[in-house]
Amino acid sequence: MTSDTLCFSVQGSDRSGLLRDLTTLVANVGGNIEGISLTGGREVEMHLEVSGVEDAEELRIALSQVEGISATAIYESSAAIFGKRVIVLGGGAQIAQVVLGAVSEADRHNIRGERISVDTIPLVGEGKIAEAVRAVARLPRAAILVLAGSLMGGEITTAVLELRRLSRIPVISLNMAGSVPDAADLVVTDPVQAGVMAVMSIADTAKFDLARLKNRRM
Amino acid sequence: MTSDTLCFSVQGSDRSGLLRDLTTLVANVGGNIEGISLTGGREVEMHLEVSGVEDAEELRIALSQVEGISATAIYESSAAIFGKRVIVLGGGAQIAQVVLGAVSEADRHNIRGERISVDTIPLVGEGKIAEAVRAVARLPRAAILVLAGSLMGGEITTAVLELRRLSRIPVISLNMAGSVPDAADLVVTDPVQAGVMAVMSIADTAKFDLARLKNRRM
Repeated sequence: MTSDTLCFSVQGSDRSGLLRDLTTLVANVGGNIEGISLTGGREVEMHLEVSGVEDAEELRIALSQVEGISATAIYESSAAIFGKRVIVLGGGAQIAQVVLGAVSEADRHNIRGERISVDTIPLVGEGKIAEAVRAVARLPRAAILVLAGSLMGGEITTAVLELRRLSRIPVISLNMAGSVPDAADLVVTDPVQAGVMAVMSIADTAKFDLARLKNRRM
Repeated sequence: MTSDTLCFSVQGSDRSGLLRDLTTLVANVGGNIEGISLTGGREVEMHLEVSGVEDAEELRIALSQVEGISATAIYESSAAIFGKRVIVLGGGAQIAQVVLGAVSEADRHNIRGERISVDTIPLVGEGKIAEAVRAVARLPRAAILVLAGSLMGGEITTAVLELRRLSRIPVISLNMAGSVPDAADLVVTDPVQAGVMAVMSIADTAKFDLARLKNRRM
């Protein structure tokens, strides 16, 4: 039986070619690498998120025999533990209210078996926010973006349109000044409700589909 | 001049050995891979966070010539954009209050040039929370953990002690029933203050050092 995604963690001394040797072993057993994180310097820990492995213990043993590796372990994948991510960007008084709504709603869904995380970066400035919006496309497990603030437009609007087109990640905007609300999938006036709706729209336990909404401003 | 960490993004058709070929090119120019995220299926996007590269444009061109690669780009690293992460785990009414405090405080520091994210997963159940506490060690850029709830002990306490010992990630616990407060670096009664203190303790713009606190319960 092929396993779901698992995290294979290895510890050891870093050396040239170590990552290549590990990924080659994963490819040899037909595993698909879905993400890798690395921590440490010369003594390195690598965490490989791998799907499609038939015999996880066999792969762990193979990894443990790679030159320089001193310890190995198998864990649940980050996707299984932390699940889908609501990303909240923006600044000021509203961002904390969006997160309040999103976290309270995620708690209600997670108690019924969902795994939804709420991840926030408070930021100000058109350039910084636009850059962060674009970077959401590169965040693992990002499922929806909420923009919280009182004025966003210009470069941020361009970044929102790019994110929606290239990554299919939906965007909820607070009702605010500037052109960002026109570029978003949904505009919500109350910040707590914006957070709640973001979670509802990605929860399998909720019946709420952004694409089916007739009223895109509320 | 050697660059800071940059994100090299490539798009193309996935094939056996693609990751190996890319990582070999990075190693050839003396780059250190600090993380990799992958999205997509057959049409894949890979984002390699790389430090120590002298000529980023030269590496981008080399990556663009790898078989199967159709597009490449260079971005700021996730570390530069999303910064250090406060991780908040737990459930119920308190978790949203911890996040409220942390996000408001992060907003104040980020406005002065910090980059601090606040990432939350509402979870209940001893096993699930213990597993998530252990997984914090494998989350990129995790700087501190806050545990929010009314009762935590048993396996969660073991996981907290492991996290502190193996990863040096400090742990703040709400004042609650169970043995987790005894295992934490700091115990805080008010959830909003717990969130604020978590951000203060990792902000370079704040003078607050958990290690120098004489009173570990407040």
